[in-house]
Amino acid sequence: MEPLCAELRELIIHTVSKTGGHLASNLGTIELTVALHRVYDTASDRVVFDVGHQSYAHKILTGRRDRFSTLRQYGGVSGFPKPKESCDDAFIAGHASNSIAVALGMAKARTLQHQNYDVAALIGDGAMTGGLCYEGLSAAASSGEPLVIILNDNNMSIDPNVGGLASMLQEMRVKPSYLSFKRWYRSTFRKLPLVYETTHAAKEAIKKKLLPENMFNSMGFEYLGPVDGHDVHALESILRWAKELRRPVIVHVLTQKGKGYPFAEEHPELYHGVGPFNEETGEPNPGPAAFSDRFGQELCEFARSDPRITAITAAMASGTGLDRFCLAFPERFSDVGIAEGSAVAMAAGMAKQGLIPVFAVYSSFLQRAYDMLIHDVSLQKLHVVFGVDRAGLVGSDGETHHGIFDLSYLGTVPWMTVLCPSSFAELHTMLEDALFHIDGPVAVRYPRGGEGEYKGCSSGREEIIGDGKDLSILCCGVMINEALEAQKRLAERGVSAEIIKINRIDGSKSEGALASLRKTGRLLAAEEACRAGCLGERLLAQAEIDRICLKAARMLNLGEGVVQSGTRAELLRDYGMDVEGLVRAGLELCGVEATT
Amino acid sequence: MEPLCAELRELIIHTVSKTGGHLASNLGTIELTVALHRVYDTASDRVVFDVGHQSYAHKILTGRRDRFSTLRQYGGVSGFPKPKESCDDAFIAGHASNSIAVALGMAKARTLQHQNYDVAALIGDGAMTGGLCYEGLSAAASSGEPLVIILNDNNMSIDPNVGGLASMLQEMRVKPSYLSFKRWYRSTFRKLPLVYETTHAAKEAIKKKLLPENMFNSMGFEYLGPVDGHDVHALESILRWAKELRRPVIVHVLTQKGKGYPFAEEHPELYHGVGPFNEETGEPNPGPAAFSDRFGQELCEFARSDPRITAITAAMASGTGLDRFCLAFPERFSDVGIAEGSAVAMAAGMAKQGLIPVFAVYSSFLQRAYDMLIHDVSLQKLHVVFGVDRAGLVGSDGETHHGIFDLSYLGTVPWMTVLCPSSFAELHTMLEDALFHIDGPVAVRYPRGGEGEYKGCSSGREEIIGDGKDLSILCCGVMINEALEAQKRLAERGVSAEIIKINRIDGSKSEGALASLRKTGRLLAAEEACRAGCLGERLLAQAEIDRICLKAARMLNLGEGVVQSGTRAELLRDYGMDVEGLVRAGLELCGVEATT
Repeated sequence: MEPLCAELRELIIHTVSKTGGHLASNLGTIELTVALHRVYDTASDRVVFDVGHQSYAHKILTGRRDRFSTLRQYGGVSGFPKPKESCDDAFIAGHASNSIAVALGMAKARTLQHQNYDVAALIGDGAMTGGLCYEGLSAAASSGEPLVIILNDNNMSIDPNVGGLASMLQEMRVKPSYLSFKRWYRSTFRKLPLVYETTHAAKEAIKKKLLPENMFNSMGFEYLGPVDGHDVHALESILRWAKELRRPVIVHVLTQKGKGYPFAEEHPELYHGVGPFNEETGEPNPGPAAFSDRFGQELCEFARSDPRITAITAAMASGTGLDRFCLAFPERFSDVGIAEGSAVAMAAGMAKQGLIPVFAVYSSFLQRAYDMLIHDVSLQKLHVVFGVDRAGLVGSDGETHHGIFDLSYLGTVPWMTVLCPSSFAELHTMLEDALFHIDGPVAVRYPRGGEGEYKGCSSGREEIIGDGKDLSILCCGVMINEALEAQKRLAERGVSAEIIKINRIDGSKSEGALASLRKTGRLLAAEEACRAGCLGERLLAQAEIDRICLKAARMLNLGEGVVQSGTRAELLRDYGMDVEGLVRAGLELCGVEATT
Repeated sequence: MEPLCAELRELIIHTVSKTGGHLASNLGTIELTVALHRVYDTASDRVVFDVGHQSYAHKILTGRRDRFSTLRQYGGVSGFPKPKESCDDAFIAGHASNSIAVALGMAKARTLQHQNYDVAALIGDGAMTGGLCYEGLSAAASSGEPLVIILNDNNMSIDPNVGGLASMLQEMRVKPSYLSFKRWYRSTFRKLPLVYETTHAAKEAIKKKLLPENMFNSMGFEYLGPVDGHDVHALESILRWAKELRRPVIVHVLTQKGKGYPFAEEHPELYHGVGPFNEETGEPNPGPAAFSDRFGQELCEFARSDPRITAITAAMASGTGLDRFCLAFPERFSDVGIAEGSAVAMAAGMAKQGLIPVFAVYSSFLQRAYDMLIHDVSLQKLHVVFGVDRAGLVGSDGETHHGIFDLSYLGTVPWMTVLCPSSFAELHTMLEDALFHIDGPVAVRYPRGGEGEYKGCSSGREEIIGDGKDLSILCCGVMINEALEAQKRLAERGVSAEIIKINRIDGSKSEGALASLRKTGRLLAAEEACRAGCLGERLLAQAEIDRICLKAARMLNLGEGVVQSGTRAELLRDYGMDVEGLVRAGLELCGVEATT
């Protein structure tokens, strides 16, 4: 099995160096994956991956080796488990901490339907910091269902673990292993049945001594481990044992992130989610400046002059650009773990007592805190600032990670103001507005990656760019780049379009946008957002109420919101929102034949 | 202090017997509240109530005694803490498990701003089952912030506690109390300073023995207790001690729900949230049949003939009418605790493996599971059925409990179908459709309370009721009752209105509704929902795209969505959505002078 592991490791390093992806987590779980496949038949048993960014070896072992070079590409192998890709992928993954609840549901379904497959969940210590995991644990423990939960403990999720759970696990890690005791015990007494019998009681006592009650025992789990996560044989044997117990079991596995690739072993946080890199040197291919980094920089600048500003992350200090803040203002920085709900509630408490908390978080993960946005922040109209990162299409992470619901769900949060910078310059001024000039909750939403051609600095609720007679193009954020280019090309075809660039969204009427519609009589709305609750819908409804009768209107967006992996350009093309798509739609709306 | 407690108890029982409200939880925390007020100054210290349905004694003790008879009434004292009602209410409450994260935020704000007030959170064992609480605990433990978390352990939240946490607490409850040991130790050795000194090490050892590591210790808390929650003196002394420790402390308090009112002591679950009742006999004033009960009945009927149907509750078996299901099909019933996210993820796992899971939950609490609705259920288009209870205005529970966001947020969930029964008959047919005839996620949303005059059984996407020439009235659910009456009265004034009764909402166009608009040229949309993403907005946008130029349109709804307590009738009147409001708006839209 060792050569197999080495081969998997090599293929993963090589592929990810080309495609980018999650490296350190996958390298850390190769032996565990091989052991899993020796114990479970993933086509019929159900192995639920948590987050799923550790499923590469599993994918290679289940018929996707040949296509593995297409990892995370448009139309290629997804970077996360996908049941529609393979029956070996038991469940979708991408967001953290759900696996135990999902696996419990599957185990209950199995038992109720008198079937006999096995169910396991594989979850990292990072995902264990999420409350959802604790809810799942609590329900699983009391269910009595045969169910194996494999805790992949690498002592560091995306960023080093924080909080009470980490200290609990730390305690367990240093305990003597019951497994090695048991092996010694069996090998020593196996040949002496009488002694074996009589010492059984003693064994139980020793077991209690070696394995003092921990949280998992107290909850009702059988706790096995810790076991070396890079010893395939030990892993196989403990997993078989766990499976045979026919009850809720936790197997505590110690792994090393980045195992086998020295650069990743040394700096696992740099190789969590990486772009393409040089396989020989470990050097990342340089990328352009990103909104996340600029956000972190700008926030530090503002924090320097205002001590009320604090920053919060949910285990994403580097991803959101807050690592810089953490170094500069450690006392004013909080990492709550993968716990977005708690981050929002804590921010609300801070705001109530006079601070200006800023929670930087990926758009799709903020979905976890929808209730806290309403209940804890907005009902009291507290001034909390949200840095909503990865808003819009995110590229190769695919359907679980696109930030395409926030425009809609943030729109329903009472008193929420949403600011949509299109450039770094606007990020600066809008963050300043968010921090100091707007009451109540404010979200500044910005995309993955950096700015485009547009480097302007627009202000006000909306800006009308150009002076069109025929068509209004509605957009926000970096979609301005496509809109501006389309405007140019439409002009070449004799269509005079103006752009409604939305900067600020709140409950008020967008008078400038309505005036534009009155003038041009046609609307083309282009949004990296799901259809329900999009800006175009809101504007069209207001237009109808204001008795503006348009000659033509079309909303381009991401429909119901299930969007695959691919570059932003590929995905925009698919949805007809690249420049060509906008031009085509503009011509159609204006009744000009599209003969390009 | 005992007479004070007796007086508080009497006033609370008497008032709640008239107004309805949360009885058992308030009777269980009277001594604790009195002790809290002896240790903390709630006007400057910050005591954060979790859920807040145990804040009545606190309200009476902080200047609201005279107005206490207005409890939960329109314009009266809220049944939950409200900072805008009193500076003694540190934070809003209503949804469970947030208090620790909120209090931590406050403690951090205090420390960063070099202030010196104290911060405490009061949380029940029920709320401790929520993952958000665990996230807060984890962050609080590692923060080192002086912060006291008071665990009010009554061994039963709304329904008897379930899951791993309950078994952990059970274990702690039977441990000898360190507090009583400490008292004995102090009184014995106080006069012998030398012995006191030399035995200190021994004391530490005994302490470890008496208080074996529990989850709280492992996380990093100082754990004190358990202490008798009805002994004011013991409570005062342990709280003072906890406060003096200047670090994160858990105080474990054992209370009895319903304490001091025999009926409530015996059946605390019946006196959790009650309507008015007879103070002498404990008998509830009879109410009409409610949608919740009918839902539970209908679900049992369907489950009898289809073994794939399972039911899930998040600690609300009685509230959602699932208690009946629990008795009839115990193996097919799951109570996950106050853990909506986990309930949805578990349901997704069940659905993936061939069951038909039904999660019955209050609309405002389902907000907690917004991400799981998208990530775990809908991205895979899994067939999970949601019984969305308390949809619309809920009355006296007020702003944290109104179910007025679900039409919007469910609308953004990919592939979600929302069914809106207006009568018990429709509840039956729509639940049947949801279970057996619709793919993917389906929500059946129904209001608090029962049906009105309308007893019809409409089917199809929408029904047009009447044949109007002048006006289309859009509504869904029990708002049909107001719409029908308004239609009648408008007819008397010469306005011919038809009603667009929306039964089913999904991504598709509502052709019938659009045809109605084309015919009448005027829309009045009346919805118990926030404005953003409401049905009227969606229909108007579609009308504009379809080039239907309306003569007049108005959307009546709950605006940004912050709605106070009051009867549904009072609140509808405020928002102009009672019959008079609809008639007035209809007349205005049609240009008829409103001279009633």
